[in-house]
Amino acid sequence: MTNDSLTLQLLGEFIGTMVLIILGDGVVAAVSLKKSKAEGAGWIAIALGWGLAVTLGVYCSAFLSPAHLNPAVTLGMAIAGLFKWSYVIPYMIAQTLGGLVGAVIVWLNYYPHWKETDDPAAILGTFATGPAIRDYPMNFLSEFIGTLVLVFALLAFTRGKFTDGLNPMVVGVLITSIGFSLGGTTGYAINPARDLGPRIAHQILPIANKGKSDWAYSWVPILGPLAGGAVAAWLYMLIP
Amino acid sequence: MTNDSLTLQLLGEFIGTMVLIILGDGVVAAVSLKKSKAEGAGWIAIALGWGLAVTLGVYCSAFLSPAHLNPAVTLGMAIAGLFKWSYVIPYMIAQTLGGLVGAVIVWLNYYPHWKETDDPAAILGTFATGPAIRDYPMNFLSEFIGTLVLVFALLAFTRGKFTDGLNPMVVGVLITSIGFSLGGTTGYAINPARDLGPRIAHQILPIANKGKSDWAYSWVPILGPLAGGAVAAWLYMLIP
Amino acid sequence: MTNDSLTLQLLGEFIGTMVLIILGDGVVAAVSLKKSKAEGAGWIAIALGWGLAVTLGVYCSAFLSPAHLNPAVTLGMAIAGLFKWSYVIPYMIAQTLGGLVGAVIVWLNYYPHWKETDDPAAILGTFATGPAIRDYPMNFLSEFIGTLVLVFALLAFTRGKFTDGLNPMVVGVLITSIGFSLGGTTGYAINPARDLGPRIAHQILPIANKGKSDWAYSWVPILGPLAGGAVAAWLYMLIP
Amino acid sequence: MTNDSLTLQLLGEFIGTMVLIILGDGVVAAVSLKKSKAEGAGWIAIALGWGLAVTLGVYCSAFLSPAHLNPAVTLGMAIAGLFKWSYVIPYMIAQTLGGLVGAVIVWLNYYPHWKETDDPAAILGTFATGPAIRDYPMNFLSEFIGTLVLVFALLAFTRGKFTDGLNPMVVGVLITSIGFSLGGTTGYAINPARDLGPRIAHQILPIANKGKSDWAYSWVPILGPLAGGAVAAWLYMLIP
Repeated sequence: MTNDSLTLQLLGEFIGTMVLIILGDGVVAAVSLKKSKAEGAGWIAIALGWGLAVTLGVYCSAFLSPAHLNPAVTLGMAIAGLFKWSYVIPYMIAQTLGGLVGAVIVWLNYYPHWKETDDPAAILGTFATGPAIRDYPMNFLSEFIGTLVLVFALLAFTRGKFTDGLNPMVVGVLITSIGFSLGGTTGYAINPARDLGPRIAHQILPIANKGKSDWAYSWVPILGPLAGGAVAAWLYMLIP
Repeated sequence: MTNDSLTLQLLGEFIGTMVLIILGDGVVAAVSLKKSKAEGAGWIAIALGWGLAVTLGVYCSAFLSPAHLNPAVTLGMAIAGLFKWSYVIPYMIAQTLGGLVGAVIVWLNYYPHWKETDDPAAILGTFATGPAIRDYPMNFLSEFIGTLVLVFALLAFTRGKFTDGLNPMVVGVLITSIGFSLGGTTGYAINPARDLGPRIAHQILPIANKGKSDWAYSWVPILGPLAGGAVAAWLYMLIP
Repeated sequence: MTNDSLTLQLLGEFIGTMVLIILGDGVVAAVSLKKSKAEGAGWIAIALGWGLAVTLGVYCSAFLSPAHLNPAVTLGMAIAGLFKWSYVIPYMIAQTLGGLVGAVIVWLNYYPHWKETDDPAAILGTFATGPAIRDYPMNFLSEFIGTLVLVFALLAFTRGKFTDGLNPMVVGVLITSIGFSLGGTTGYAINPARDLGPRIAHQILPIANKGKSDWAYSWVPILGPLAGGAVAAWLYMLIP
Repeated sequence: MTNDSLTLQLLGEFIGTMVLIILGDGVVAAVSLKKSKAEGAGWIAIALGWGLAVTLGVYCSAFLSPAHLNPAVTLGMAIAGLFKWSYVIPYMIAQTLGGLVGAVIVWLNYYPHWKETDDPAAILGTFATGPAIRDYPMNFLSEFIGTLVLVFALLAFTRGKFTDGLNPMVVGVLITSIGFSLGGTTGYAINPARDLGPRIAHQILPIANKGKSDWAYSWVPILGPLAGGAVAAWLYMLIP
């Protein structure tokens, strides 16, 4: 049910990515911040929570936009001939802004918990991703593989129609699966807007106990996903 | 499949909210009470259990009512023009009574476990919500944000038809997601009837080892959700 | 897709209840027996595993029978006027035999693990249910409440057609929810065949390290569910 | 939506089994390897992760092939008269090659983590299955039972059409259930390609800290599943 108006589509991408980050960064905050009732719920909560977050991001934007919610997906859809090239950059901007505003809302929701949490790495981790073992080429490869699986699977089972029928649920299943299976290395950004938007929020917000925003790593969760999404679309197009 | 008769609709809201609390407060009791076989199953059980509880509350009331089961949802639907204003107060009363009776049934189901549980806070927590860090304005904000996401998402993907097709399952997914991601602060009442009904039950029942019912906090999970639901409906109406 | 032949229906009930117990008692064995790779996975695994077990029991019998798989459900359907009274006793026998044979298969699957497990209570727990706190009237009440919720919900959302569309999935969701929320007390038999069939298997099989079969408790998970199922159907019939 | 061309079908089986192993062996790596963010997430993550992996394997191959992704399933479908015997061997080869390549991708994704992991058994476990208690006849029986349940259930509820509608989701539910309930003994290969392909990869890849590939056990997860799939199909055919 994509709208003809670019403005409404961008609003949809903004809302959907904002919801995705409210619920996605939200679950990391819930599990990581001190005195949270979910403290220590661990990786199962994170993988399930992110899957649900993406499903609900799709549902919340589907009445306005095709619910890409991810620059790597938008790029892949354009390469696969399923999306207008002229809309690619505006979509990416709307998605990143949605991610930024979503992170601000997570900060507000957990406001009393930041000053209880004395680990700056845990705080950064509730906003942006970081590697379990810092090794840029291999971290890039991991983001590349995760996003390749994401975009290839999206093309194979939805042909770009993420919002039809129960596809939003299947998209969430896909995100949870990638999280469980490939995310142990870099925390599976697999979405440049998911990482860059909240990293900017981390940089500019007056968060208690925050440290540096680790900009040295920030290119990995941007370029890895974009490369993975592009190659996935190209591989999909190769199949007769 | 909403019935024309207000009486039957109110019966549906009563039954649905009762089931929601039997299964929702039930999972908190299962995880929190001493000697329960589920003792210590933690936040993942609680977030999954509450989502399932709401799904089944919707299924159990759908043959009679539109399955709001939540005064904040009823208010939001009225503001969005999807529900009669004259039914709002009767619905809210039926929902709160359902919550109260549901909490009585949880008390009976776990009857031998209350006297084994010597922590009054844990016992109150199986009935009503409470803040991880007591800070009324921020606790209000957290309930406001959670319910805003809830009611906006409900409007965006169901347009008020919660009981159609597989929507009851998606509603449960939404509740689980809010629980995982935003509930770490206040335990996500996001529903005044879910909190007030069981708090009244806690006040009046002769529960072994119970303490005070914390009425000082009780306005937060009433007014926060009502405000969040109202603003969600208003934001949704702003979109052309 | 119920078959006209009673013999094939009984085969369906036998197969479905057998699968339900293979996968249901199976998950308890997986979590409880020593050296099992799932040892210690806890209540979340048990509640999810039982829900999946019932879903798959329904799917495996649906081409032959209406997939009651539970004497309390069969009784409730007859009281609600949705099932022939003359078939009630044959169905109950087929279900109980399915439960017995299913438990034998679990014993074979985990054969090397029984002699590693030195706790007779854990071994009995992989076959039949037992109370967290032994209190027969309250244990009865807990089985009564759990089965009342089960049968009322089944009637409300399926009207007795458990095998249509995605209903088998929703039935599993219902079982998982009752397990999470009400099962902490008695381990939620909520099905006489689920308890009696495997308890007979426990009595007669030469299981390493087994103890007594606790027949003193065995009436609770038979009569509690039957009473709950009957009252649920009667309450459902009261609603106009 | 099966393609007429055998070549494209084999490509589908290759892609699907590759995705199944990327996400399936991936989740074992995520949970088992040192410094992985999912380290210690345990059996619940593994059982859920494998179910999702199979669902997504089916979705990723469904536009090309019938999505067997498992030689035991292919054999069972042929015995049940739902698949051409002449395609059985080519399918099995494509599936095993997909498993092998999938395991290579898991090795690359987790590249920095192998040298941090000093337990060769944990490393082998991320590729191939192994018994909790080594007892070849009983290990064979356990793989036989698990695959019998798998193939019988697939026949009963899909009649061989795994890719229709939401069947890919139900197939994943079935895998998760078998994992939770029957997998505690041998790690539920229930698929010769799932075990043999990655075991070959383990043998030939230069994995840091790897030990032996345990070829003495390798026949169990090949012959057990093939026998279980064959008997399941034969039992299904016996039912009128």
